[in-house]
Parts: sequence; C-alpha cells; structure tokens
Amino acid sequence: MVKYLNQDEAISIDLELFNEYKFSVDQLMELAGLSCANAIYKCYPNNRRVLICCGPGNNGGDGLVCARHLKHYGFEPFIYYPKRTEKQLYQNLTHQCETLDMIVSSHPIDCKSIDECYDLVVDALFGFSFQPPVRADFLPILEALKRTRKPICSIDIPSGWDVVNGKPEDGICPDMLVSLTAPKLCAKSFGGRYHYLGGRFVPFQLAEKYKLDLPLYSGTENCISLK
Amino acid sequence: MVKYLNQDEAISIDLELFNEYKFSVDQLMELAGLSCANAIYKCYPNNRRVLICCGPGNNGGDGLVCARHLKHYGFEPFIYYPKRTEKQLYQNLTHQCETLDMIVSSHPIDCKSIDECYDLVVDALFGFSFQPPVRADFLPILEALKRTRKPICSIDIPSGWDVVNGKPEDGICPDMLVSLTAPKLCAKSFGGRYHYLGGRFVPFQLAEKYKLDLPLYSGTENCISLK
Repeated sequence: MVKYLNQDEAISIDLELFNEYKFSVDQLMELAGLSCANAIYKCYPNNRRVLICCGPGNNGGDGLVCARHLKHYGFEPFIYYPKRTEKQLYQNLTHQCETLDMIVSSHPIDCKSIDECYDLVVDALFGFSFQPPVRADFLPILEALKRTRKPICSIDIPSGWDVVNGKPEDGICPDMLVSLTAPKLCAKSFGGRYHYLGGRFVPFQLAEKYKLDLPLYSGTENCISLK
Repeated sequence: MVKYLNQDEAISIDLELFNEYKFSVDQLMELAGLSCANAIYKCYPNNRRVLICCGPGNNGGDGLVCARHLKHYGFEPFIYYPKRTEKQLYQNLTHQCETLDMIVSSHPIDCKSIDECYDLVVDALFGFSFQPPVRADFLPILEALKRTRKPICSIDIPSGWDVVNGKPEDGICPDMLVSLTAPKLCAKSFGGRYHYLGGRFVPFQLAEKYKLDLPLYSGTENCISLK
C-alpha cells in the first residue's frame, strides 16, 4: 500500500531530489508535467479544449510543461497564468508554450466562460507547499473552479485543499488527481473518479528511506492508476 | 516522407531549439534520452544487461539519461564513460546514475568482455557534430563495437560514421538506430533491423521552417518506427 505523505515529508523528499540526488528543476518538472499529460490523455482522450490554470510556483510550472505535451498530443490548451514569475525557467516554459501557438493569458476567467469554452480544466494553481489562506488574487478563479460543470484534473494537490487535512468544506471537487512522486495525505479525501501517480524518477534509496512503497509502474509507463 | 538532415541543418535546428525556443539542455536531453530508453524497451525487452558507452559531449549525456530510465524499467545498465566532462549537468547526470546503483566506469573494455557480460550495447559516443577522424582515445572501444556479436543500438549517429556520407568501409554495424529530432543523412546507409525516431518536442514552426515532414507520433508515444 503506497504511503501518503505529510507536508514535511513532501518538502524533504523534494529537497533531497535536488540537493542529494542532483536533479535540476528543469529535469523533474519536465518529467512531472509529461506524466500529467499522459495520465490526462488516458482519462480524457476526447476532452480536447483544455483550460490550464497555472499558479506562481512549481505547480504552475508543471502545468506549463503539461500544456506543451498536451499540445503535441493534439489537444487545444489555453493557459490562464495570472501571476508570472521572473525566474528564467518559468519565462522559458511560457515562451515554449507561446511558440506552439498556445495563448497564455492573465485575463480573469469566470465559471460561465469555462463551461462554454472548455471540455476540461487542469488545476495547477497550488502544490504541496501551499499554506492557507488562498491569496485574494486567486479567489475568483477558485470560485469558478468550485462552480464549473466541467471536469477538473488537479496536479498533485487540489488547489485550496489543506495538504494534510484535505478538502475544506467549500473546497473544489476535482474529477481527477495526479499525485506526483508519492500521494499526499489530502488525497485520502479525494472523491473523484481518477487518481493517478506520476513522476517515475524517484531513486530506489530515497523510496526506501521514506518507506514510500511505490506501486510498480508497467513497461515504460510514467503514470499509474491508484484507483 | 521524413526529411534527412545534413550536418549544418542538424546544428542549426539544435541551436534554434535553445536560442529561439528557449529550451534548456536539461529538458531536451531528458526527453531525448527517455525516448531512446522507450525505443530500446520496444525492441529488446529481454536484453537486460546493457552496456552504455558514453562519449564526452551531448550524445554521451543522452546515453546517461537513457541509462537511468532503463534502470527504472528493470534493465541492468553498466556505463562506460571514459572521458567525463567538468560541466555541472554531466556531473549531475552521472551522479543520478551512480545513486541508482549503476556502475560508471572509465576502465577499458574489449570485445570479449562485451560478448560475455552484456546482451545489448548502447552507442552514445559521438553525435551529429562529429568530425572525423576518431580521437585515439576512442579507437579501442570502436574496435570492440566493430567486432562484438551483441546487438548495438546507436543514439542519433552510429559512432565513427560520417554524419552525411554514412558508414565508412570499416564502420560499426548497429542493429538499431534511434534518430533524434529528425534523421541525419547518414541514416540512409543504415542496414540494421530497427530505425526509430525519438524526441517528440520539435515546435511545429521549426518543423515547418526546415520542412522536416515528421511522421505522426501515436497517442502519447515519444518514439516511432521509421522502418
């Protein structure tokens, strides 16, 4: 049975991947975003019009990478990215999307527009380092995600949820969750249809140290269904 | 019909990916090496004992990434890496392999040892920027690759071949070739069983500009058989 991580464990594992195992953010973000795109393709092969909501941190970066791969798979991603960062990697990831003819917008988007224009929403707003409360800037998009009738796929953490305690009373209800590296405790209160694990790059020693009990990925698959 | 590139075109496309499309070497090497690992898994699922021969440049870096993913797929890679570079990325890629319990060695290896100890050889010695003649340091390993009875999978260019004119009279005869981004002209004289294309990251505008006529990858596949 795969282990569910608390927030400190998730942060420690992330730090070890960079500091001890010498991965670069570029590398792991590429593999993480790719595994999200592959899991999405498995579950929603025909939900082509995808709104990707990207937050200001690493979770948003995973979303940008996911968008790029989805575009190569024939999807039509539109990226909502209200708070861009100055970091070079993020500027480059954004540029890579724009040069694939994807629109990257900071224009506010409401529930009605989502329901009319998209078949799927990817929630890449906040990740495992999220601490409540949600910043005022992001309240409108979270409100739209709570009310939309379209399925939501959350990357690693459903945005606005407590990483350990899970869904707040008025939290979003994603249809899909792609946990990265290992699921976090909040995933125990996930009630949607699809729960995948992605990010097949965890060194065996690291998995052993944290007793992750990761499932066996099949063949060359980079994601696996947990439910 | 996919286009076969000359050396100048290959170098120009590579430069544009970095300078115009703002990819990092970390990103593209990760995707390239991953696609090689996936293609190898398709063709040699049971040739588990793999010798990965890595050269000093980017082709060797692709080999290091390929080795790491093969290890995750259950293969037993052993890395021959006679000329390490000081660049941080290469040191990190090497460290990532070593911390997955792979041996990275600079100890010379001869044909007899290859035939006895391995089921497959991955040739990641020289890539598309190779200019003959082969440096003296690498003559012994190339000699061993010419004489081994075990199948060789070359990454992008069969090492020692002219990038445009192809196989020299006494060149190695790989059983598999994984072309990256687009095949190079030398691939026209490839006589082995498996020719794959990997590296599904070429921006559509770039493919258009160079009239690459890339084949359509299937689903979420990152490699495709050209033969």
